[in-house]
Amino acid sequence: MEGKEEDVILGANKFPDRQPLGTAAQTKDYKEPPPAPFFKAGELKSWSFYRAGIAEFVATFLFLYIGILTVMGVKRAPSMCAPVGIQVIAWAFGGMIFALVYCTAGISGGHINPAVTFGLFLSRKLSLTRALYYMIMQCLGAICGAGVVKGFQPSPYEVLGGGANVVAPGYTNSDGLGAEIVGTFVLVYTVMSATDAKRSARDSHVPILAPLPIGFAVFLVHLATIPITGTGINPARSLGAAIVYNRSDAWDDHWIFWVGPFIGAALAALYQQIVIRAMPFKSRG
Amino acid sequence: MEGKEEDVILGANKFPDRQPLGTAAQTKDYKEPPPAPFFKAGELKSWSFYRAGIAEFVATFLFLYIGILTVMGVKRAPSMCAPVGIQVIAWAFGGMIFALVYCTAGISGGHINPAVTFGLFLSRKLSLTRALYYMIMQCLGAICGAGVVKGFQPSPYEVLGGGANVVAPGYTNSDGLGAEIVGTFVLVYTVMSATDAKRSARDSHVPILAPLPIGFAVFLVHLATIPITGTGINPARSLGAAIVYNRSDAWDDHWIFWVGPFIGAALAALYQQIVIRAMPFKSRG
Amino acid sequence: MEGKEEDVILGANKFPDRQPLGTAAQTKDYKEPPPAPFFKAGELKSWSFYRAGIAEFVATFLFLYIGILTVMGVKRAPSMCAPVGIQVIAWAFGGMIFALVYCTAGISGGHINPAVTFGLFLSRKLSLTRALYYMIMQCLGAICGAGVVKGFQPSPYEVLGGGANVVAPGYTNSDGLGAEIVGTFVLVYTVMSATDAKRSARDSHVPILAPLPIGFAVFLVHLATIPITGTGINPARSLGAAIVYNRSDAWDDHWIFWVGPFIGAALAALYQQIVIRAMPFKSRG
Amino acid sequence: MEGKEEDVILGANKFPDRQPLGTAAQTKDYKEPPPAPFFKAGELKSWSFYRAGIAEFVATFLFLYIGILTVMGVKRAPSMCAPVGIQVIAWAFGGMIFALVYCTAGISGGHINPAVTFGLFLSRKLSLTRALYYMIMQCLGAICGAGVVKGFQPSPYEVLGGGANVVAPGYTNSDGLGAEIVGTFVLVYTVMSATDAKRSARDSHVPILAPLPIGFAVFLVHLATIPITGTGINPARSLGAAIVYNRSDAWDDHWIFWVGPFIGAALAALYQQIVIRAMPFKSRG
Repeated sequence: MEGKEEDVILGANKFPDRQPLGTAAQTKDYKEPPPAPFFKAGELKSWSFYRAGIAEFVATFLFLYIGILTVMGVKRAPSMCAPVGIQVIAWAFGGMIFALVYCTAGISGGHINPAVTFGLFLSRKLSLTRALYYMIMQCLGAICGAGVVKGFQPSPYEVLGGGANVVAPGYTNSDGLGAEIVGTFVLVYTVMSATDAKRSARDSHVPILAPLPIGFAVFLVHLATIPITGTGINPARSLGAAIVYNRSDAWDDHWIFWVGPFIGAALAALYQQIVIRAMPFKSRG
Repeated sequence: MEGKEEDVILGANKFPDRQPLGTAAQTKDYKEPPPAPFFKAGELKSWSFYRAGIAEFVATFLFLYIGILTVMGVKRAPSMCAPVGIQVIAWAFGGMIFALVYCTAGISGGHINPAVTFGLFLSRKLSLTRALYYMIMQCLGAICGAGVVKGFQPSPYEVLGGGANVVAPGYTNSDGLGAEIVGTFVLVYTVMSATDAKRSARDSHVPILAPLPIGFAVFLVHLATIPITGTGINPARSLGAAIVYNRSDAWDDHWIFWVGPFIGAALAALYQQIVIRAMPFKSRG
Repeated sequence: MEGKEEDVILGANKFPDRQPLGTAAQTKDYKEPPPAPFFKAGELKSWSFYRAGIAEFVATFLFLYIGILTVMGVKRAPSMCAPVGIQVIAWAFGGMIFALVYCTAGISGGHINPAVTFGLFLSRKLSLTRALYYMIMQCLGAICGAGVVKGFQPSPYEVLGGGANVVAPGYTNSDGLGAEIVGTFVLVYTVMSATDAKRSARDSHVPILAPLPIGFAVFLVHLATIPITGTGINPARSLGAAIVYNRSDAWDDHWIFWVGPFIGAALAALYQQIVIRAMPFKSRG
Repeated sequence: MEGKEEDVILGANKFPDRQPLGTAAQTKDYKEPPPAPFFKAGELKSWSFYRAGIAEFVATFLFLYIGILTVMGVKRAPSMCAPVGIQVIAWAFGGMIFALVYCTAGISGGHINPAVTFGLFLSRKLSLTRALYYMIMQCLGAICGAGVVKGFQPSPYEVLGGGANVVAPGYTNSDGLGAEIVGTFVLVYTVMSATDAKRSARDSHVPILAPLPIGFAVFLVHLATIPITGTGINPARSLGAAIVYNRSDAWDDHWIFWVGPFIGAALAALYQQIVIRAMPFKSRG
C-alpha cells in the first residue's frame, strides 16, 4: 500500500488536467473518516436510529406498492408488444428508486435494498446493528407493499404471477444467478461511485445529481434482465413479492435473489476498495 | 419532545458519517421559521399575493391543457398495446409538473394542486387565506384548460371520456379511494422532502434537483394507478375534467378525488412532522 | 408602476417563507441590466457575433437531422400502436433541445428557434440585428438538416411526408393555430422562467437545471400536439421541412407555423413582463 | 489569431448580457492548460494510469453487457410495434453512458468509447500513450461484455444478430458512413461542450449536469439511426459485438464503424477548436 499511497499523491500533482469531467475544484486536504464499528452502544438509544428504520420501511413499502402495481397493470392490459411492458416496469422501479433515494438520503442514507446495505456494511459505512435493522425494516416494508397490491384484486394478483421473481423458461439457474450478480454490481457500483466520501470532498458537485444515476442504474438493469429473472437485484423486493404470492414456483428459485445480489454487492465493495477509493488525492496526515 | 430534541442533538454529534448521501456540508445553526398565521392582513393588499394566484392559474391551465390533450390523442389513436398509452399519459402529467414546478416555484411556490396546498397548509407553511385563494385559482385554471381541449373537438371529447377520473370496472370505490390516498401520499411526501427548510439549510444541494423528483412522483403514480382511477391525486385536475365533461359517471365517483388526495396529503404532513423534520441538526436557541 | 415597485419591496420583506421551493438564498441588491439597443455598431465587427450565428446554424442543423430522421424511421417501421411513434418523436425533438441548449447556451444563448429569438427580442435581451441574423442562420441550418435526411432516401422521404408540419384531417386551421400558440407559449414561458436574470440572481441554483425543463417543454408539447399539427412551435423546423419536402399540402398550412409561434412567443414575453419579472426582490438604486 | 484574441476580449467586455443561459458568474482570469505531451514518461509508472484503464475496461464491459442484453431481449420478444424496440434499446445504451460517465469521470475521464478518446486526443487533452491504452482496454471490455451475453444463450444470440452493427437493407454504405459520422459528431460535440475547461471556469455550473446531456446524445442518435446501422458511434461497441458474433455480414461493413466515428470525432474536435473554445473570456497572460 506504500507504493500506492505515493502514486496517488503523484497522480494528484502530475495529472491535474487528465480528467476532463469532474476535475478537482478543490484540492484541500482530505482525511478519511474512520470505519464504522460493528456495534455502537449509543445507537440503540437514539431516536434518529429508529426514525431511520421507519424511513427505510416506508420507502420500501412505497417502492413495492408502485412497482408491483405497475407490473399488475401491464400484465392485465391487452398488449401485443412485450417491450412496451418491459419499459413501463423498468421506469416504475427505477423512477421510484430515484425519487426515494432523493427523499430518504438525508434520513437513513436511502438504501431501500438489503444488497445496498450489505455493500455499504462491507465498506464499513455503517455498524452491523444498523445493517441488520435496516434489512429487517426493508423486508417488512416490502411485504406490506406487495400485500396492499394483492388487497386491491386478490385473484388477478395470483393469476398474473404477483410480480414475484422467477427464472424465465429457456434460462438455467446459473443464467439467473449471473444476471442477478452483474445487475446488482451495476447498482451498487453506481451507489459507491455516487457516495464515495473522498470523491465528494474533491468534486463538490458529485452529490448533487447522485440519486439520478442510482435510479437509472435500476432502470437499466430492468431493461436488460426482466426477460431473464423479472429483475430482483433487491432481496427485500423479491422476498416481499414471494411471501405475498406464496406459490412453490416463486420459492424454488428464491435463493437466487439473495445469493446473487449479495455476491454482486460484495464485488462492488471490492471494486470500490481497489479502484474507486484510490482516486488521486493529496492526503497528508 | 424534550427527549427527542436531545436525541436529535445527539444524532448530529455522534453519527456524522452514517448517511452516505446528502451528508451535512454545513453544520451551521438553524432556526426554525415561525408557522404561518391563519390570516395575514397585509397579504391581501400585496401585488405579490395576486401575482402568485395568477401564476397558479396559468400553471394549472397549462397542466390540464397538455395533460388532457395527450389523453385525447392516445384514446383516439389506433393501438393494440395499452401500456404504451399509460406511459405517454404518465409522461405528459409528470413532465408538466416537473417543468411547471421549476417555472413557478419562485413565484407562488409551485403547488399547481389543491392537495399540495392543503398539505403545506397543515404544515403551516402558508396562511389559510392564501391556501383557499390558491385552491380557487387552481380549480379555475383547470376548468379553462380542460375547456380549451374540448373546444378543439367537442364530440370526440365526449365520446372518449374527456380525461375525467372514474373508478375503472373491476375495482371497488374503496380500491379507488385507497389508490388516491397512497398516490397523493407519494407526491406530497416527495414535496415535503424536497422543500423542508431544515434539510435545505443543512444540505445546500437539496433544492437544485427538487422539481425533478416531484415530477417523477407524479409520473410514477400515473404508471401505477391509471388502470384503477385514471389517476387524480390532484382535485383541481379531477374537478376541471369533470365539469367540462359533465356526465353522471364522472360525478358519481367525484368525491373520491377530493377525499382521497386530502387524506393522502394529511398523512404526508403527519409523516413530515414526525420523521422528516426531526432530522439530526444542531439547534440551539 | 410606483405601487408595484413598493409592493415588491414589501413582498420581499414580509413573506420570506412563503415560497417553499426556490427561496431566496441571497438577498443581495439586484440591478436590472439595461435593455439591449436595436442596433449595436460594434456587434457586426466582432468574431463572437459570427461565431454565435455558426453555433445556431450547427445546432438547428443537428436538431432537424436527428428529429426528421427519427420521424422517418417511425413512419417506415411497421407498427400497430400510434402512441409509440408519438413518444419516440417527442423524445427526439425534446431531447435534442435539452442537449443543444446545454451545449450552445454559453456561445449564442442556445435559441435554436426563431420563436424563442423573437420572444427574447421583445424582452429586449438582444439587438434587432442579432435577432434577424440568428433567425436566418436557424432557417439555413434547418433546411440543411432536413436536406441531409432526404439525401439518405429521397423517395421514401416524399412518400412519408418528409416530417413537414400540416394540420391533421379532422382539425380546422383555427385548431392548428391555437395548438401552435399555446404550445409555443409553454416553451417560451419555460425559457423566460429559466433565464430571467432577476430570478437567477436571487436563486443561484436556477440556471443549473435550466436546459432540462426547456427540453421537457418541447417534449411535452410534442406529446400533446403531434396528433393535431405534427408540432411545429419552431418556424425554422417547419420551414426547413417544408422547403425540402416542397409539396403544396405543406405550403398551404405553412403560415400557421410562423403566425402561431410568434403570437405564442409574444404572449410569453408579455407574461414574463407582468408576472415573472415582478418577483419580490429588494432593489434600491 | 491576433484579431480573434482581441475580439474575444472585446466580446467579454461588450456583451455581458447577450447570453441569457449560462452567463458568466465569474469573470476571473483564465489560463489555458498546456496541451498534453505525446509521451509522458512518468505515466507508465503510476498506479492511477493503470487504474484508469481498469475503470475504462469495467465501464465498457458493463455498457456492452446491458446494451446487448437489452437488444437480445427486444429481438426475442413478440412485438408488432418496431418503434417500441428502438426506444428500449436507445434508453439502454444512452442511459448506461449517463450512469457510467457519472461514475468513471473522476477516475479515467469517463470515455468508454475510442471515438471520444480519439477526439480528446486530437484536442491534446491526453497523451498518445494514454489514448492507445484506453482504446485497447475499451475494446477488451467490449469483447468480454458481448461474450457474457452470448454465454447466456449461445444459439438465440447468433440467430438474432448478436447486436452487431450492419448497414440495413435499403441503405448504401455511404448512407451508413454518413449516419456514423454525423452521429459521432453529435456525441463528441456534446462531450466537448460539457468538458471544455474554459467554459467550466467561466460557468461553474456547467459540469454539474454534464453526464446527462452526454447520455442523452447517445440516446438521441440511437433513436435516429438504429433503423440505418443499428447505431455504432463507438468502435469498441461495434468491435466487441462483431468479434463475439463473428459472421461475415458483420465483418463486411465493419470498417464503417471505425472510419465513421473517427471522422465524426475529428470534425467535433475541429469545431471545438474553432467555435467552442473561442468563447468570450478575459484572458491576460
